[in-house]
Amino acid sequence: MSADTPSRTAASPDTSRATAPLCVLGLGLIGGSLLRAVADSGRTAFGHNRSTATVAEATAAGYDADDDLERTLRRAAATDALIVVAVPVTAVDPVLDAIARWAPECAITDVISVKQAVAQSVSRAGLSTRWVGGHPMAGTSQSGWAATDPGLFAGASWVVAADDGVDPSIWTAVADLALSVGAVVVPVETDEHDRVVAAISHLPHVTAAITAAVAGGDGQLALRLAAGSFRDGTRVAGTAVPLQRAMLEANTTALLGAMDEALDRLTRARDDLRDTGSVELVVADGHRVRTRWEAMTSAPAQPITGVTVGESGWAAELRRQAHLGRVWTTESRTQIRSASPS
Amino acid sequence: MSADTPSRTAASPDTSRATAPLCVLGLGLIGGSLLRAVADSGRTAFGHNRSTATVAEATAAGYDADDDLERTLRRAAATDALIVVAVPVTAVDPVLDAIARWAPECAITDVISVKQAVAQSVSRAGLSTRWVGGHPMAGTSQSGWAATDPGLFAGASWVVAADDGVDPSIWTAVADLALSVGAVVVPVETDEHDRVVAAISHLPHVTAAITAAVAGGDGQLALRLAAGSFRDGTRVAGTAVPLQRAMLEANTTALLGAMDEALDRLTRARDDLRDTGSVELVVADGHRVRTRWEAMTSAPAQPITGVTVGESGWAAELRRQAHLGRVWTTESRTQIRSASPS
Repeated sequence: MSADTPSRTAASPDTSRATAPLCVLGLGLIGGSLLRAVADSGRTAFGHNRSTATVAEATAAGYDADDDLERTLRRAAATDALIVVAVPVTAVDPVLDAIARWAPECAITDVISVKQAVAQSVSRAGLSTRWVGGHPMAGTSQSGWAATDPGLFAGASWVVAADDGVDPSIWTAVADLALSVGAVVVPVETDEHDRVVAAISHLPHVTAAITAAVAGGDGQLALRLAAGSFRDGTRVAGTAVPLQRAMLEANTTALLGAMDEALDRLTRARDDLRDTGSVELVVADGHRVRTRWEAMTSAPAQPITGVTVGESGWAAELRRQAHLGRVWTTESRTQIRSASPS
Repeated sequence: MSADTPSRTAASPDTSRATAPLCVLGLGLIGGSLLRAVADSGRTAFGHNRSTATVAEATAAGYDADDDLERTLRRAAATDALIVVAVPVTAVDPVLDAIARWAPECAITDVISVKQAVAQSVSRAGLSTRWVGGHPMAGTSQSGWAATDPGLFAGASWVVAADDGVDPSIWTAVADLALSVGAVVVPVETDEHDRVVAAISHLPHVTAAITAAVAGGDGQLALRLAAGSFRDGTRVAGTAVPLQRAMLEANTTALLGAMDEALDRLTRARDDLRDTGSVELVVADGHRVRTRWEAMTSAPAQPITGVTVGESGWAAELRRQAHLGRVWTTESRTQIRSASPS
C-alpha cells in the first residue's frame, strides 16, 4: 500500500509513535473498548462519535470524546496522533475524506473486519501511504458504548496488514498499539486476510444460518428436541441480521470462494453417504482440523523471531512466520529493539 | 408397534410398573447415569455391562451391577422389571436376542439415538409388543462410567415413541421413568423422530465438520485467527470419529434428506450472493429460527393436557400436542390419574 522505500526506515523504526496520542473515530464496541483500554494505560487518547448520546456516555465515564469530527481531526493533526478508523465499513468513505482534508499527515489504521474494501476506500481518498490496515479478532455480537470493555483485546489475535511496501514506522506504531492492549499481532497480506476471515468467520455465519433453517422447517417439535449440537452450531445465527449483512456483504468475493468450497465438500459428503453409507471422510476431515485448533489454542503461540521491521524483505518474512502459526509479541518487539543498530 | 387393542387398557394404565425394578443393559454415559439416578431415588435398579472393569467401577460406587447377561435377564424376568437397552446401536441385536430368550415378558425401552433401526431389530427379535422406544436428548461427547452423572437428565427432553398401537401401560411406565429422573417427555412417532434428529442433531455434525475443514485448508494462519464463530460452530466436530460415525450412519435415510435440504439452501445462498450481493435471505431465515428457539427454551414448556393414555386415539392426540411444542410432564400425568374412572 505504501510508496516508501525500505531504505528510508530500515532498522530504525520511529519509536516516538508509540507514545503519540491516539485518536479513535467511532466509539462502538471495538472503538470504544480501544479508547478505554489505551486511556486507562495512561497514554493520551481521544475519540469521536457522531452521536452526541454516545459522546455524553463516554465523557460521563471519564473519557475524552467529541462529536465534532473536524475539531477532532484538527487536534489529531496538531498532535501527530495515530488515527484509528472504527466506524462500520459502510461509513468509511466520508470519514476518510475528512481525514484527507484535516489530518492528511497522520498515521492511520482501522479495526474493520474486511481489508480489501477498506484499502480501496483509502486509495480513493489518497491516503494509502499513511495507512496500515488492522483487524482485532474480538467480539461482534454486541454493540454500542454500553458493551465496551477495556479488557476486550486481552489475548486476542490482531491482524496488522503486512503487504510489501507498507510503511515500517506506521506498521510498528499499529503493532505496538495492539500489543499495548494485550493482543498478539498476526501479520497478514490484505487479500489473504479477507480470504481467511471468510473461511473462519463469515462462512460459519452462513452454515449456522442454514443449520438453523433446516431444523426450523420441522416446527416447534424439532426445536423442542434441539440440544447441544444445535445450540452451539447455530449460536452466531442469533446475531442481528443487519450486523451480519454488513460484515458478510463487504467480503463478497472471498465469501463466495468459501461457500463454493463448502458446497463441494457437502456434495461429496452427501454422495459418500448415499453411495457407501459412510460419513467417515467428512467427519474425519472436520475432526482433524478441530483437534489441531484445540491443540493450537491450548498452548501459548510461538513468537516471530529474527525480523527487524524495515529491513529488506521484512514484511514477507513476517508473513512467512505467521503462516507457521507464529505471532508478533512484545518478545518479538524487544528482540528487534535490542538487535537494532540505532 | 403393539398389537394390543385400546379397549384392553383404556383409562386404566398399569401403575404398578412405576415401582417395578429397573434393569439397565449397558452402563455407558446414558445407561450408567440412568442406573445411578433411579437407584439414588430409592427404586430398585440393577444393571449389566459386559466389561468386568465397568461392573467393578459401578459396584465400587455402590450400585448393583453384573457382567453376566443371562443372570441379569433371569432376574429381570423374575421381578417383572422394566428393561432399558442402553448399548450402542451396533450392539443391539445380540442383546435383544438374549431378552427374547430369558425375559420375553418384560416391558422394554431403549435410549438409543435412532429409532427406526432399533424398531427393525426389535421386530426381528419378536419383541415389538413389549417395546416402547425412547431417546433422552442428553450429552454424547463424553463416554463411559466415569462420565456418568445422575443429574444428566434434569430438564432434558426425552422422546418416548407414541406410534399408533403402542401398549399404553408400557408407554406410561417408560414416560414415568423419564419423569422420575427430571426429564420432560416428548411423544413422537418413530419415523418422525429419526427425521427430526437428523435435522437438529446429525446435520449439525456434518455442517460443523465442513466448516472446520474449509477453515483448515488455509493452514496454521487461519486457525490462529479463528475465534468465537469458529469455536462454537465447530465444537461437535471434536467428538470422537467412531462415535459420530455410529450415530450418523445409523440414520442414513433421514440424514440424507437433511443434507439435501442443506445443499439446496447453501446453493441458493451462494447464487443470491453472487447475483445480488446479498445474504439477507439466508441470514434472516437462520436468525428467525434461532430466535424462536431461544424464546422457546427461555420459558417453561406448556404441558400436554386432556389426554388419558389408553383411550381411543390417545397416541395421535399426544403427537398432535407435541407438534405445538408441548411436553408430557408430571402435571399431564397427575391430571390423567385424577381423570381416570378406575
